[in-house]
Amino acid sequence: MDEFMEHTIQDLYSAEKQALQAMPQLAQRVQNEQLREAFQLHQRETEGQVIRLEQIAKQLGIDPDGETCLAMQGLIEEAQDLLDQLEAGPLADAAIIGAAQKMEHYEIASYGTARTLAQQAGQTQIADLLETTLDEEKATDEKLTRIATGSVNQKAAQA
Amino acid sequence: MDEFMEHTIQDLYSAEKQALQAMPQLAQRVQNEQLREAFQLHQRETEGQVIRLEQIAKQLGIDPDGETCLAMQGLIEEAQDLLDQLEAGPLADAAIIGAAQKMEHYEIASYGTARTLAQQAGQTQIADLLETTLDEEKATDEKLTRIATGSVNQKAAQA
Repeated sequence: MDEFMEHTIQDLYSAEKQALQAMPQLAQRVQNEQLREAFQLHQRETEGQVIRLEQIAKQLGIDPDGETCLAMQGLIEEAQDLLDQLEAGPLADAAIIGAAQKMEHYEIASYGTARTLAQQAGQTQIADLLETTLDEEKATDEKLTRIATGSVNQKAAQA
Repeated sequence: MDEFMEHTIQDLYSAEKQALQAMPQLAQRVQNEQLREAFQLHQRETEGQVIRLEQIAKQLGIDPDGETCLAMQGLIEEAQDLLDQLEAGPLADAAIIGAAQKMEHYEIASYGTARTLAQQAGQTQIADLLETTLDEEKATDEKLTRIATGSVNQKAAQA
């Protein structure tokens, strides 16, 4: 149990830190104003999520470092490869939303697993911290869907 | 638009085919009967999803091959690395569910993007095919959560 929980927290910590590094690069290519603001907000939110993971690691008595999240590495590489093929504009914006949603969904699945593990081990406080981040990730995902269905993809479809 | 749609379909095709290859290896390590059955069912479902992507590619006049989904590659590598450290049992089962849910969520995000793009380009028939798969992926994800909260993680927490 502890081993898997430790891995999950370390993997999430690596994922969030990679996402923090990648986000400004993605945001730089964004043309849609609403999308750029969403990225800036999520950047600050992610900084808080990293701190939450550090608190959890402290409570568990583990080092948050120690893993490289290969999945997030793959997601970021994929996003960069795709964006290298697209010029800034509605199409690239739609691709950036798609890439960001994949990153969000990775985190949703991972925080969901960690939260369930913590709940069932009776670690209520840790479960609550994970749930808070999980809710933020879901809200970001929904916001990105709203932006995509609202304007970006309509323009991309016309491009 | 076409370029991004083409990339998304090819990426999904590569993701599904990698998942098809990885699933029997994951299922082999499963101890929980309910989970093993869920894997077997999802394996057959995935074969249908691959065919659906081939139909979509045909309608779009594109080759479904041509991309390697780096993200799915990362997810599978991560799952294998983790499972190599765990003996078969409730803990490994919980880890397998976590890994499978990450794969599901990758696909949910990706099919969601493709469906929205197709809808907004007025490609209703393609959007419907993508929506059908999206619903299947969401149902699988929910089923995995039920299995995780039902039995596997309770046993993992005691291990």
